[in-house]
Amino acid sequence: MTELKNDRFLRALMREPVDRTPMWMMRQAGRYLPEYRATREQAGSFLDLCMNAELACEVTLQPLRRYPMDAAILFSDILTIPDAMGLGLHFVEGEGPRFHKPVRTEAEIAALRVVDARTDLDYVVRAVSTIREALAGSVPLIGFSGSPWTLATYMIEGGSSRDFARAKTMAFNQPELMHQLLGVLADSVADYLNAQIEAGAQAVQIFDTWGGALGDQAYLEFSLAYMKRAMDQLTPESEGRKVPVILFTKNGGQWLEAMADTGADCLGLDWTTDIGGARARVGDRVALQGNMDPSWLRAEPGKIRAEVDRILASFGSGEGHVFNLGHGITPDINPDHVTAFVDAVQELSPQYHA
Amino acid sequence: MTELKNDRFLRALMREPVDRTPMWMMRQAGRYLPEYRATREQAGSFLDLCMNAELACEVTLQPLRRYPMDAAILFSDILTIPDAMGLGLHFVEGEGPRFHKPVRTEAEIAALRVVDARTDLDYVVRAVSTIREALAGSVPLIGFSGSPWTLATYMIEGGSSRDFARAKTMAFNQPELMHQLLGVLADSVADYLNAQIEAGAQAVQIFDTWGGALGDQAYLEFSLAYMKRAMDQLTPESEGRKVPVILFTKNGGQWLEAMADTGADCLGLDWTTDIGGARARVGDRVALQGNMDPSWLRAEPGKIRAEVDRILASFGSGEGHVFNLGHGITPDINPDHVTAFVDAVQELSPQYHA
Repeated sequence: MTELKNDRFLRALMREPVDRTPMWMMRQAGRYLPEYRATREQAGSFLDLCMNAELACEVTLQPLRRYPMDAAILFSDILTIPDAMGLGLHFVEGEGPRFHKPVRTEAEIAALRVVDARTDLDYVVRAVSTIREALAGSVPLIGFSGSPWTLATYMIEGGSSRDFARAKTMAFNQPELMHQLLGVLADSVADYLNAQIEAGAQAVQIFDTWGGALGDQAYLEFSLAYMKRAMDQLTPESEGRKVPVILFTKNGGQWLEAMADTGADCLGLDWTTDIGGARARVGDRVALQGNMDPSWLRAEPGKIRAEVDRILASFGSGEGHVFNLGHGITPDINPDHVTAFVDAVQELSPQYHA
Repeated sequence: MTELKNDRFLRALMREPVDRTPMWMMRQAGRYLPEYRATREQAGSFLDLCMNAELACEVTLQPLRRYPMDAAILFSDILTIPDAMGLGLHFVEGEGPRFHKPVRTEAEIAALRVVDARTDLDYVVRAVSTIREALAGSVPLIGFSGSPWTLATYMIEGGSSRDFARAKTMAFNQPELMHQLLGVLADSVADYLNAQIEAGAQAVQIFDTWGGALGDQAYLEFSLAYMKRAMDQLTPESEGRKVPVILFTKNGGQWLEAMADTGADCLGLDWTTDIGGARARVGDRVALQGNMDPSWLRAEPGKIRAEVDRILASFGSGEGHVFNLGHGITPDINPDHVTAFVDAVQELSPQYHA
């Protein structure tokens, strides 16, 4: 493999010294970019785009051509694993993801098998190696997966949900059944991430989008425990280097200590958590990624810069910060505002590094 | 006024000794009750029901006839203040509240006046005194208001919102304008709650449904500061007794210390916060209300009882706990499951009180 020219991101995840705070943006390859919309149109559906390695590579690289991001992230969907299990993922315009065959009964759950990612999800593996080759060592590539609990909610509800009535009812009423489902998912997530690592992913992030909808005990039992089960099976090193793991639970700011206990290298923070406070709680054990409210990107460039400044100052001097948004960038954002955001991190962060 | 026969709720809010943990349920007068649906049909629209003192009184009392709740709560909507300001509240079936005239420009905000609740919201004042008389001292009556920030989001967005794009853009881009709006709302909330207290409300709760969508600094600046501004103007005593104030920010578990600093008597907790942990953080200064995930009410009665037990044990022995759900009960809940919930609190809580 080509030598990595910019390893700021990987160094910050291991809390090693960097010259400035590295950054990337969740959903940086996305609809706010006109070139993304053009490629998406060329591909057909969103899933067609995910399944075409060349076009998935193209949209992955697009934000890097505009902005000096310190990492690329695999372009894919968080629901590829349930789709590979045969649930029939599709997208309903304006309503998000849906499954043709939700999973709700004991028989349906008993029929599920741990995915073999190298064959069942070969299109993702191909996308990872294609992107990795195209990056040519410019920046590291992040692989990712949805968390077991997050996948389970979509599989049980059959799509998005406001209050997760079916998924929570299963967790509360039939916890053994839910544990059975989560076990299969955790092992699948591990296999899926290991296949991405083998294909060239240099760090991985677990997106726990819906763990924060659980109560504190339920979060530990149904979400965090299964992220740990997946993480415990991950390939620790690749190409002679640690493959750092980022754990991101949206609305998980109350559970950072427990999240750090899993052995994750970095915790993703949404914007509701003060990053300086988070650092005081767990920053001697993990790096922190985040955490600007993506809504700030709608403000004037000068206001965006001031908010970046505030977050950098809140984290303070020293290592272990990866700048990011607290959630994905939304389609309505003006790309020039992203320039202001990126410039601010680049220009204001060196003073915090010795 | 008639003497209060059951003052457990008021005593717990002041962290005074009680024989068992008092309880009520957010949205206890609601669609899960067939008798509510019948009265609602009789009234016409939801707003017609809110504006009819006799029928609002009837639905307020309905849950008390079924369950030995320790408090009644005024039946009304959180958006009565903006409606009184002339925005034209209405409800679109299946889509929630809407305003005919959202407020977005400097001119529109400059035209807003602090409400005079005794005249502009006389139907609420009438409902409070009607309910208070009908209660005949059985249990105390809770008055309530939406928080200034929560009201502002609906006024600016024109209804519900997923990401509060317009409201946050105003807060971030034109903070002075947002402060002007929030000031008018805070003073209106104070006048509204004082009118309710004058009419017989014995405790008041501020519902900050959307403060938790803000970043930590933005929460302090745009939500908490204006709840404090309202609270600082509240009538402290009525009928020779303190009128306790409950502050409830959904998803506010990270900010309990700052919430306690406002001088609130009690903090409402949603289910994402461990109530024992919350007590360790702020329980020497405030009472705590909560915090069972309303989704537990879909589980079997035995499971509901176990969860009540877990929450009681987490709070532990001693005073200052009002049992409640972490958010409103949903329309699909079987009323018999509420019986299991109420019975569990009644039967399991005395051991925690000396």
